[in-house]
Amino acid sequence: HRCDHSSTAMLDVPFLPFCGFLGMLGLLCVAMVGTWCQHWRGGFSLDGSSRTFNWHPVLMVTGLVVLYGAAALVYRIPNTWSGPKLPWKVLHGTLALGAFVLTVLGLAAVFCFHNSQGTPNMYSLHSWMGLATVLLFSCQWAAGFGAFLLPWAPTWLRALYKPIHVFFGSTILMLSVASCLSGINEKLFFSLKNKTMEYKLLPAEAVFANTLGLLILIFGVLVVAALARPSWKRPDSDSLDSRQVRDALGG
Amino acid sequence: HRCDHSSTAMLDVPFLPFCGFLGMLGLLCVAMVGTWCQHWRGGFSLDGSSRTFNWHPVLMVTGLVVLYGAAALVYRIPNTWSGPKLPWKVLHGTLALGAFVLTVLGLAAVFCFHNSQGTPNMYSLHSWMGLATVLLFSCQWAAGFGAFLLPWAPTWLRALYKPIHVFFGSTILMLSVASCLSGINEKLFFSLKNKTMEYKLLPAEAVFANTLGLLILIFGVLVVAALARPSWKRPDSDSLDSRQVRDALGG
Repeated sequence: HRCDHSSTAMLDVPFLPFCGFLGMLGLLCVAMVGTWCQHWRGGFSLDGSSRTFNWHPVLMVTGLVVLYGAAALVYRIPNTWSGPKLPWKVLHGTLALGAFVLTVLGLAAVFCFHNSQGTPNMYSLHSWMGLATVLLFSCQWAAGFGAFLLPWAPTWLRALYKPIHVFFGSTILMLSVASCLSGINEKLFFSLKNKTMEYKLLPAEAVFANTLGLLILIFGVLVVAALARPSWKRPDSDSLDSRQVRDALGG
Repeated sequence: HRCDHSSTAMLDVPFLPFCGFLGMLGLLCVAMVGTWCQHWRGGFSLDGSSRTFNWHPVLMVTGLVVLYGAAALVYRIPNTWSGPKLPWKVLHGTLALGAFVLTVLGLAAVFCFHNSQGTPNMYSLHSWMGLATVLLFSCQWAAGFGAFLLPWAPTWLRALYKPIHVFFGSTILMLSVASCLSGINEKLFFSLKNKTMEYKLLPAEAVFANTLGLLILIFGVLVVAALARPSWKRPDSDSLDSRQVRDALGG
């Protein structure tokens, strides 16, 4: 059935243009969450008011979704597949660390806002899901650093941990997208309450932020899809299977 | 590096016990969403009140998450890998159809509730995301039925569409889990409003429903992980790669 191969080849998209599209979509999400907070929610400050809270969605979308997605996609760049691996590992770890720092600042913004308003922390499902996402991300970063960047981990441990790291890489991104969507939904119910500006009347802000939510969702799905796509994966020189496939295919 | 193989083998879990665990987790989610609506939200009726709304979470969790997950996992049962494929296709399609019928009834429950209360439909991000999920699911079912169950689709079309169907299978499940979580979060903000029972005071209902949300999340992640696991996939007799891997491995 050789025809199967040529027919699936019709679906082939080169990685780099796709990645450029993803980059523009990610920047659009960052621009839109910034615009939402600036134009409709009063802008930004560090005084503990709702203008402090506004850092929360901006930092979470920028860090835990867009920068995280960029970090996750590093090994899908074909340039990383040959030559020394260490510089790419450092890039992957640094982008992920940047995402983590923005995420922690984003958490600090909402805790600071709640504390200065006397609102309890960590009661909503959004907060439980979000904190679980951040805790998983911190474990993921620490374990990845310990296993892949520090020189002491034995090869068998790296081989054992790698599929786990890859699995949690996609999972954490899905969780952070789900957290963002529940957070945007919740924020709109909080903010759009007065009779002429109710969420249920779909004012411009609601349409804008709902659209932002759907774009974040599309970004997340496309990154996870790009990560899962077999032909975009780094051919792994350590893997028995992939070597034998290449041998079998005469590569 | 043969050691890589034996070390990843340490992570091997047989599919059927894992599937049994997933089944129990799914039933627990259904039992918990039913308990939430029965014990805290006043139970069920068809009178257009909030007791009609209560069918919405129960039908969505049962249909679009648990039954959908069961349908998605059919081809991971090793018994399906040999012998005639048609009975398994029919089972897969029937479970998915059951999930779809429950989903449509779940949508009907919320539209009926909104209409009888004079509340607008389709304004929140939850509703946009949920409707997008259901629309994708209906396209997925119709295209799957047309391509794989009706006898007229040519082989090249089936081969072209199959990876798309598989990709959207996991994606729709992630979207439905994200929709459920934003819906539970939103419902708790709606319901827990009076001073002694505010969501932010974390009454028993909030802890219970937040926990339900996290269990739905874990169920979804585990189903998507099971679907993605290479060693649990049906060895595809149509695929060049998998045949050659088996040849190369002496299978």
